[in-house]
Amino acid sequence: MAETKKRVFFFGDGVAEGYSLGKDLLGGKGHGLHEMTHVGLPVPPGFTITTEVCRYYYEHNRQFPPGLEEEVLENLKKVEKVKGQRFGDPSNPLLVSVRSGAPVSMPGMMDTILNLGLNDKIAEGFAKLTGERSAYDSYRRFLQMFAKVVLKINEEKFARKLDEIKARRAAFLISELQNMGLDVDALTQELDDPKDSKYREVKVEGELLKKVAQLLKIKPNKSALKTKVRELLEGKAKDTDLTTEDLKELVTSFKEIIRQETGDDFPQDPYTQLWMAIKAVFDSWNNPRAIEYRKIEGIPDDLGTACNVVAMVFGNLGDDSGTGVMFTRDPNTGEKRVYGEFLPNAQGEDIVAGIRTPMPLSKIDKTDEDQTSLEEWDLEVYEELLNLADKLEKYYRDMQDIEFTIERRRIWLLQTRRGKRTPRAEVKIAVDMAKENLIDRNEAILRVDPYRFEKVLHPYVDEKKVRERFGYVPKLVHGIPASPGAATGKIVFDPERAHELASAGEDVILVRRETSPEDIKGMAAAKGILTGKGGALSHAAVVARGMGKPAVVGVETVEINEEEGYIKIPAAFNFKGVPITLGEGDVITIDGGSGIIYLGDVPKEEPKLGGEVAELLMWADEVRRGKLGVRANADTPKDARKAREFGAEGIGLARTEHMFFSEDRIRDFRTMILLASRKGERYERAKERIKNYQREDFYGLLKEMDGLPVIIRLLDPPLHEFLPTTDDQIRETARYVGIDEEEIRHLVETTEEANPMLGHRGVRLAITYPDIYAMQVEAVAEAYLKLKEEGYDPKPKIMLPLVGFATEMKAVREIVERTLEKYSLKGNIEVGTMIELPRAALCGDEIALYADFFSFGTNDLTQTTLGFSRDDAGKFLPEYIEKKLLTEDPFKTVDDAVAELVATGTKKGKRQQPDLEVGVCGEHGGDPKSIRKFYKAGVDYVSASPFRVPVARLSAAQAVLGN
Amino acid sequence: MAETKKRVFFFGDGVAEGYSLGKDLLGGKGHGLHEMTHVGLPVPPGFTITTEVCRYYYEHNRQFPPGLEEEVLENLKKVEKVKGQRFGDPSNPLLVSVRSGAPVSMPGMMDTILNLGLNDKIAEGFAKLTGERSAYDSYRRFLQMFAKVVLKINEEKFARKLDEIKARRAAFLISELQNMGLDVDALTQELDDPKDSKYREVKVEGELLKKVAQLLKIKPNKSALKTKVRELLEGKAKDTDLTTEDLKELVTSFKEIIRQETGDDFPQDPYTQLWMAIKAVFDSWNNPRAIEYRKIEGIPDDLGTACNVVAMVFGNLGDDSGTGVMFTRDPNTGEKRVYGEFLPNAQGEDIVAGIRTPMPLSKIDKTDEDQTSLEEWDLEVYEELLNLADKLEKYYRDMQDIEFTIERRRIWLLQTRRGKRTPRAEVKIAVDMAKENLIDRNEAILRVDPYRFEKVLHPYVDEKKVRERFGYVPKLVHGIPASPGAATGKIVFDPERAHELASAGEDVILVRRETSPEDIKGMAAAKGILTGKGGALSHAAVVARGMGKPAVVGVETVEINEEEGYIKIPAAFNFKGVPITLGEGDVITIDGGSGIIYLGDVPKEEPKLGGEVAELLMWADEVRRGKLGVRANADTPKDARKAREFGAEGIGLARTEHMFFSEDRIRDFRTMILLASRKGERYERAKERIKNYQREDFYGLLKEMDGLPVIIRLLDPPLHEFLPTTDDQIRETARYVGIDEEEIRHLVETTEEANPMLGHRGVRLAITYPDIYAMQVEAVAEAYLKLKEEGYDPKPKIMLPLVGFATEMKAVREIVERTLEKYSLKGNIEVGTMIELPRAALCGDEIALYADFFSFGTNDLTQTTLGFSRDDAGKFLPEYIEKKLLTEDPFKTVDDAVAELVATGTKKGKRQQPDLEVGVCGEHGGDPKSIRKFYKAGVDYVSASPFRVPVARLSAAQAVLGN
Repeated sequence: MAETKKRVFFFGDGVAEGYSLGKDLLGGKGHGLHEMTHVGLPVPPGFTITTEVCRYYYEHNRQFPPGLEEEVLENLKKVEKVKGQRFGDPSNPLLVSVRSGAPVSMPGMMDTILNLGLNDKIAEGFAKLTGERSAYDSYRRFLQMFAKVVLKINEEKFARKLDEIKARRAAFLISELQNMGLDVDALTQELDDPKDSKYREVKVEGELLKKVAQLLKIKPNKSALKTKVRELLEGKAKDTDLTTEDLKELVTSFKEIIRQETGDDFPQDPYTQLWMAIKAVFDSWNNPRAIEYRKIEGIPDDLGTACNVVAMVFGNLGDDSGTGVMFTRDPNTGEKRVYGEFLPNAQGEDIVAGIRTPMPLSKIDKTDEDQTSLEEWDLEVYEELLNLADKLEKYYRDMQDIEFTIERRRIWLLQTRRGKRTPRAEVKIAVDMAKENLIDRNEAILRVDPYRFEKVLHPYVDEKKVRERFGYVPKLVHGIPASPGAATGKIVFDPERAHELASAGEDVILVRRETSPEDIKGMAAAKGILTGKGGALSHAAVVARGMGKPAVVGVETVEINEEEGYIKIPAAFNFKGVPITLGEGDVITIDGGSGIIYLGDVPKEEPKLGGEVAELLMWADEVRRGKLGVRANADTPKDARKAREFGAEGIGLARTEHMFFSEDRIRDFRTMILLASRKGERYERAKERIKNYQREDFYGLLKEMDGLPVIIRLLDPPLHEFLPTTDDQIRETARYVGIDEEEIRHLVETTEEANPMLGHRGVRLAITYPDIYAMQVEAVAEAYLKLKEEGYDPKPKIMLPLVGFATEMKAVREIVERTLEKYSLKGNIEVGTMIELPRAALCGDEIALYADFFSFGTNDLTQTTLGFSRDDAGKFLPEYIEKKLLTEDPFKTVDDAVAELVATGTKKGKRQQPDLEVGVCGEHGGDPKSIRKFYKAGVDYVSASPFRVPVARLSAAQAVLGN
Repeated sequence: MAETKKRVFFFGDGVAEGYSLGKDLLGGKGHGLHEMTHVGLPVPPGFTITTEVCRYYYEHNRQFPPGLEEEVLENLKKVEKVKGQRFGDPSNPLLVSVRSGAPVSMPGMMDTILNLGLNDKIAEGFAKLTGERSAYDSYRRFLQMFAKVVLKINEEKFARKLDEIKARRAAFLISELQNMGLDVDALTQELDDPKDSKYREVKVEGELLKKVAQLLKIKPNKSALKTKVRELLEGKAKDTDLTTEDLKELVTSFKEIIRQETGDDFPQDPYTQLWMAIKAVFDSWNNPRAIEYRKIEGIPDDLGTACNVVAMVFGNLGDDSGTGVMFTRDPNTGEKRVYGEFLPNAQGEDIVAGIRTPMPLSKIDKTDEDQTSLEEWDLEVYEELLNLADKLEKYYRDMQDIEFTIERRRIWLLQTRRGKRTPRAEVKIAVDMAKENLIDRNEAILRVDPYRFEKVLHPYVDEKKVRERFGYVPKLVHGIPASPGAATGKIVFDPERAHELASAGEDVILVRRETSPEDIKGMAAAKGILTGKGGALSHAAVVARGMGKPAVVGVETVEINEEEGYIKIPAAFNFKGVPITLGEGDVITIDGGSGIIYLGDVPKEEPKLGGEVAELLMWADEVRRGKLGVRANADTPKDARKAREFGAEGIGLARTEHMFFSEDRIRDFRTMILLASRKGERYERAKERIKNYQREDFYGLLKEMDGLPVIIRLLDPPLHEFLPTTDDQIRETARYVGIDEEEIRHLVETTEEANPMLGHRGVRLAITYPDIYAMQVEAVAEAYLKLKEEGYDPKPKIMLPLVGFATEMKAVREIVERTLEKYSLKGNIEVGTMIELPRAALCGDEIALYADFFSFGTNDLTQTTLGFSRDDAGKFLPEYIEKKLLTEDPFKTVDDAVAELVATGTKKGKRQQPDLEVGVCGEHGGDPKSIRKFYKAGVDYVSASPFRVPVARLSAAQAVLGN
C-alpha cells in the first residue's frame, strides 16, 4: 500500500500541484481547475482530493484513509493564505464550495455544496464584509444545499418555505403599489394592442413610473411593469425582491426544518461541515441515480469520484456581481464570437434553475429591446471575458463552454469543458480553427464526428424549433431510421398511385407494409418511404438510401392496411394519446435520420452545404488519396451523376437486377427464364431485347462515369423473384411466352425456397443458366465498344456474385471470357468477384487465382457469418441491442468477426496476387466506424450509396489518420 | 536434356534393372514385373521402355529419342539370351508381347499386342516346335490384335470372319453326328425332366457316346452332349473346335482383310512389327477413350505410359497349357484359400472375353459335377500355384490378383496387383493378416476403407444376386442415398396409416413428398423411408440416419401424390421402360446405401457382424482412446442403448425438440408459447406438464447412459415450427389454450420468416422467452437428482444452440445457472455451446470465457459458411458435383473451409481455456474423411448417429494413425 502517496493536490495563485496528472486521478472538474490555474487563468484557489481516496473509502467500509485529515487541513491553510481569509474566522471567513468530479462526465448525477463554512456567527461577520443581504442570501443557500446533499432532507420543505415568503413579499409589494395609487387590476386587464377597440389605457408615467420601477427593480417602462405586476399577483416574487429580513427569516426557518427532520441542530462547526460534505460527495458516487447512469452509459463502477474544495467567490454580492456561462464560439453556427448568458447578483446554479431570465453576453444576441446584455452592463468585464475566451481557445485548441462568476467586477473561472455544438458548427469550427492555425488540417478532419457530419447533408426535423413554433411536437410514432433526411407529403399506399400523384405535382410519402422490387417506380416518385416491416437492411431501406430518399422502416407498432387504405397509430405512441387513424391524402412528415413520424407538415431544417463542408472534404481527400478510395453504389445514370458530384471515384457496385423490373422488361426476362431449357426463336428474341435494354443501361452508366471504374455485378437474386405470382400475372405471362399456365405454376413452385438467402442465386444461376450472364456480358461489351467509338473512356469491370469456390470462379470466368472474346475484348475488361460468403473469404487465396478484383459484399457476409437474416432479424435485434447483447446493429456497423473475415480474405487474396484490387460494397461502406475497420483490414476502397459518399470521404480520411 | 539417361530397363532370370525405380517411371505393370523378377518369381524375360520416353515422344512431335533403337535392340538381345531363342529366327523364334502400362491404373483403356514376331515363314518354323495348330492359332490372334491396335482396323471384320468359320465348323460337326446315327433333332427336343409325361428319351450310350464325346471334346455324358449340340445347331462352334485348316484359312483371310483395309500387305518383318507396336502403345496414351478416362478420374495428361516388351509364353500349346487368374484369398469372404479360374489351351484374354467357360482352381469351388478344376487337372501345378500365392503374399503383404500362364506345365506370372475384395473380405483379410503377422494391427486398421466398412453393418441389395435369381433387376428409379440399409415393405403415404399397419405387423415403406417433425411416429413405424424432395441433410435423411433406418430421398423424377395415394415413375427410369404407377400396398424395396428403389421384394444381403469386425474395432479403440473419442447423437433411450451397444462413449447431442411433437405434448407447448407474454395459471400448468414430460425423457436417456456424458441441447428450432397451421389445428388450439383464433393466426403470421435458418431460433429464443430454457434446465436437474437418489451416476451437460456472441453465452448461461442454483446444482452440471455460426468459431476465445465445452454443429456451420441452405441446395448441388465444381457433397464430407473454422474455433477456445472439451456433433461426425479433418483440427471427440458409431470408431483410429 502506498500509504505515503499524495492524496490531496493544491491549486491557486498560479500553482497547480495536479497539473498533467489527468482526469483519472483528479476527475474532470479537478483536472480542468488545475489546468486553468497552471495556464494563469483566474481560478479561485482550492484543492482536489483524488479518486484514489474515493476508492479507498469504498474498499474500507466508508472510512477515510489515515492521514487524510492532516493533508486536507494543510491544503486548506494554503487556500487561506492565497485568499487572505481564514476558514471559520468570523472576522474574515473563508467559505468554500465542495464539489464532486468523476473522471468521466456524469452531468447532474452528483452533488455540489456552495458557501460552506458559514454558521450563525460567521454569517454575522460575513455580513460586515459583504453586506447583510448577500451574507444571509449565501447562508440560506448553504443551509438548503447542505440539508439536501449532506443530510438527505427532502428539498420540497425548503422550497415551500421559500415560496411562502415570496408570496408574502409579493402581496406586500402589490399593496405598496396600490398605496402609490396604481390601479393594479386595471393594469392587468389592459389589452396590449392599442389599435383594438376594447383598448383602455392605464397611464403610468413620470415620477410614478420611476418610483414604481425602483420599488420593483425593473426597467422604467410599462410593459416591464405589467409583466412584473402579473407575476406578483400570482404570488411569484423573485429572489431579488426578498429583503434582508426575508432572508434572515428563511435562515431561521431552514435551521428549524433541519432540527425537525434530523432531530439535531444544524452543525455550526465549519470543520464538521467540511468533513460531512466531503463524505457526502464520496457517498454521492454510489447514489441510485449515479449507479443507474453508469449502468446505462457503461461506465465502470470502480472509477470513483474526486472531491474539489474551492474557495468561494460570490456572484451575489450585488449588482456588480453575477454568474454566467459562456461558449467561446457560437455553438449553433460555429461563428467565432462568444455566446452565453449572464445573471447579475446570483450564485451558482441560478441560471440552470431558471429562477430569473438571464441576459445575453453580447448586444447582438438580444431578442428584445427591454433586455440588456453583459456587453452593455459592463463593457470592461465583457472585454476581459473575450480576452479569457481567446486564452482558453489558445490553450485548449477547441471551443470551450465555461462557467464563470463575477465578484465585484472581477471574473473567476469555475469550470471549463469542450463546448457541445451542432453538426454544422462542428464543421465550421474545425475548419476555422485550422485556418487560424490553432490546429492543423488533420486535426480538423479528426474533429468532425462523421455520424453527426451526415446531418449536415440532409434536412432534418429540429423538435426544439417545432415546439417553438407550434407549442407542441405532433409526434406520431417511432420507427427504425433507415435513410436520413426529412420529407413531408400525402400518404399513399399504392406505388402506382404514388407515381400518378407525384407526376401531378403532389408530394407523397409511400406507405407500405414492406416494399419489393416492383415498387421501385412508386418509391422513386415518393418524397419519402415508410414501411411497417423490415430493418436497416430491408429492401425499402437499401433502395431509399441508394436514392438518397428519407425512409423510416420497421414501424411495427402501427397497423398498415394497404388494401383498405389506412394506418392506425396506437394511443400509446402518439402526441394526442388516443388512437389515430390516417388515410390516403393525410399529410405526414418523416425524419429518416431520427426515425420519427410527425402529423402534418412540420418545419424542417434545410442543409446548407456551405464552403466549410466542401473545404473539409477537400482536405480529407488529400489525406486519404492513394490510401483508401471512395466509390459509390449506383445503378442508374442519375445516381451515378449524383455520386460523381459528391466526389465518388468510381462505381463500386452497379446492380443489374433492378433494371429488369419495369413492365416491358420483366416480360422478356420471364420469357428467357421460362424457355431456358427449350430455347427456340421466341427465347432468342427475348434475350436479344433484354440485351439491348441492358446495353443502354450500361451505356448510360459508363458515359456518366467516363474515365472512372464501374463495377457491374451480374445477376444476383434467385429467379423466383422475377417470376409472376398472381393469377393475372401468370395468365398474362403464359400468353406472352406462349406456354401453359400450369407449366409456369410448376416452375414458380419448384423455384420456391426455404431459405432463399442461401439458395439458388448469384453465380449458382450462371452454372445452371449460363446464357443469362453471357447476355449481360454481351451488353457490357457492346456498350463499351459504342462508347469507345464515340471517343469516351469507359472502364467497366465485371463482378460475379456469391462465389464460394475457386471452381465456380474459374468456370464462370470462362463463360464471361468466351463472350468477351467474341468482341475481341478479353483482357480489356477485368473480371472479379464479390466476396460475401465466409468460405469465399477463408479461401481468398484460391479464388484470387481467377479474379482480378475482390469486392466484399458485407451485407450478405454479415448475414452468413452471424446467421442473421436481414429480413427476420427485426424480431430479435432490437431486443439484443436493448439488452446490450449487441452494442451496435451489425447491419449498420460491421461486426468485428465480419471485419476479421474481410481482413483474412484480403490478406489471402493479395498474398496470392499482389495486384488484386480489394473493396467493400456492402452498406457498411458508408458507415464511419466500419470504414475504420475496413481500412485496418487492408482494403483499397469503400463504396457507399451516393448520398453517403461525403461521409465516407471524411471517414476514410479519419481512418487513414489512424482514428 | 538428359540425353544419356537410361531409357530401357531389362528384367529376366532373376535380374531386374528397374527394381525400386517405381511406377512413375516404369508404369504399374512394368513395376510389378521388375519386382516379381527381383523376388525370384517366375516371370518371362522382357524390358520396359520408360514413361519418360513417352513424354519425349509427345514433346517431339511423336518422334522417338535418338539412340532408343539401339537400346531396345540391346535389351532384346538379353531376352533372346535368357530364352535361348532369336527374334525373327524361323528356326527358333522369340515372340514377344508389347503392352502399355501407365503409372496410374487405367483398366482396359490402353492396348496390348501378343505373339508379336510372327510372319508366314516364322509361323511355319514355330509350327515345328509347338505343333501346327498352336502356331496358327497364335498367328491369327496376332494378326487380329495387330490389325486392331496398330493398324486401327475395325475388329468387326475379323470377328465376322471367325464366326463364319465357326458356323461352318458347327455345321460340319452336326453332319458328322448325324453320320454317326445320332438323332440330333430329337435330342434337342427332349425335355430335361424325366418325370414329365411328355418326356421322350433319346438313348446315347456306350461306344457311340464315347465317339461323340471325342469328336466334340466334351465329357462323355448326355447333358454335356445336349448343351454342345444346341450350341452347334445355333452355329456356335468353340475356338477349340477349329481345325488347323480352319486356323490357316483365318490367317489367310485376316491378311487379306488387312490388305483391303490398308492397301498394304501385312508387315512381315518382325522388327517393323515391333516398332509399329511400340509406337501404337505410346499413341494409345492419347486415344479418345484414354483421354476421356483421365478427364473423369482427374489423372494428369502428362504422366505418359511405359511400354513393356516381354517374351511370350504360350498357354495355347495344348492340353498341358492354359491361362488363368488367381486371387490369393477368397475375395468374397476373405477366407485364406486361393480362388480363381483357369482355361486350358488358351491365351491371354480368352478368360475375360468369355469364349469358353473356365474351370475353378480348387475342387471345392466347382458348381457342377461335370466341371473339373485345376486341382484335379494337374495337382502338381496347382500346388506350385499355392506356393507362389504364399510367396506373393509374403512379399506384398496383401491379397493379390495375378494373371498366369501355364506353358507345358510350367507356371509363368504375367501380372500381379492388389486384389479387389468385398467389404466383408476386406475386414477379414486385414484382421487375419495381422494375426498371421504379415502386417501389424495398425496397418490392419488402415487397410479397411471406412466407407466400405459401413456396408458390413447394413443389409444391402446385391444386384448380381438379384439378376442371378430373377434373370433381371426390377429397378424402378434412383434417388439420393440418405441412410444405408435395405428394406422391403408396402407403400404407405400417410404416417398415421403407416403406424397402424406396422402395429398390425405389416412391413411398410413410408413414402412422402417430404417429411416434417409431425411424421416421426410414422417414420419410426416404417421399415424404410422414401421422399421426393430434400438432400442428404433433409429432415427425412437426418431422422432416418438417427434411427438407423434405410432412406432414399430427393427422388425428384417421381411424381408423389400423397392426397390421391399414388406414385408415378416415368418410363425413362424404370426397368420396364413404360410409366409405372404404384399405390398404397404395392411392395417395393429400397436400398439406402445405393439410393435405388426396386419393385417388389428383392433379396437382400444380411450383414453378419462377425468376429473380425468386432476384433478390428477393438484394435481401433485401443489406438484412438485418449486421442479421439466417439459419441453418438441420440434423442431417445432406445437410440442411446443402440449407441452404447455400438461402442459410443457418451451422447454428443441429444436434441430436445423432437420430444415436443407428440399430440399431448405439443398442445401444452403451444399453450406455453401462446401465453408467454401474459403468463397466468394456464401457462404455468402447461409449463409444469411439459417439464414433467421432459424430466422423464431425460431420466430415460441418462439412465441408459449411466456413467457416460450426455450433452442435452436446449430448444433450437424457430417457434413457428411448433405452431398450428391448418384451420382445424388452429381451432383446436384456440379452444385448448383459451384464446382467440385470430390471435393465433396473427402469431403464426408474425413468426413466419423469410429465411428461418437464419432466424429467431436457438439461444435467440432464450433471450426472448427465458422461461423455456429455464423449464428445460429444471427437467434436467430433476432427472439428475432422481437418478442420483437411485444410486446412478448421471452425467448431463447442457448445451446452448446457435450462440454467436459471448454476450449471448453469458446471458443465457446466467439463466441456466440461476435455475441450477435452485436445485443447488450449480457447478455440478457443465454448460457449453454448439458452435454453428462462422462468427462463433471466429470468436471462440471470447465465447470460451463462458463455456465449459464446445460442440461444433457442422450441419449449420456448413450452411452458413458456404451459404447453402440444406433444404434448397438440391436445386444445384447435383449439378455442381456433376460438373466437378465440387468433388464432394459438403453436407456429407466436411468442406475444407468449414474444417478450417473448426480448427480456428478449437484453437481459440482452448487457448482461452485449456480444459475446454471440444467435439463435433454435425452429421459429418460419422463421415470418415471428415473425421480425419476434425482430428487434424484438434477436436477431442466426434459424435455420430448410433448406426455410424462403428464406422466412426474405425475412422477415428485411422485419423489418429495419420491417415
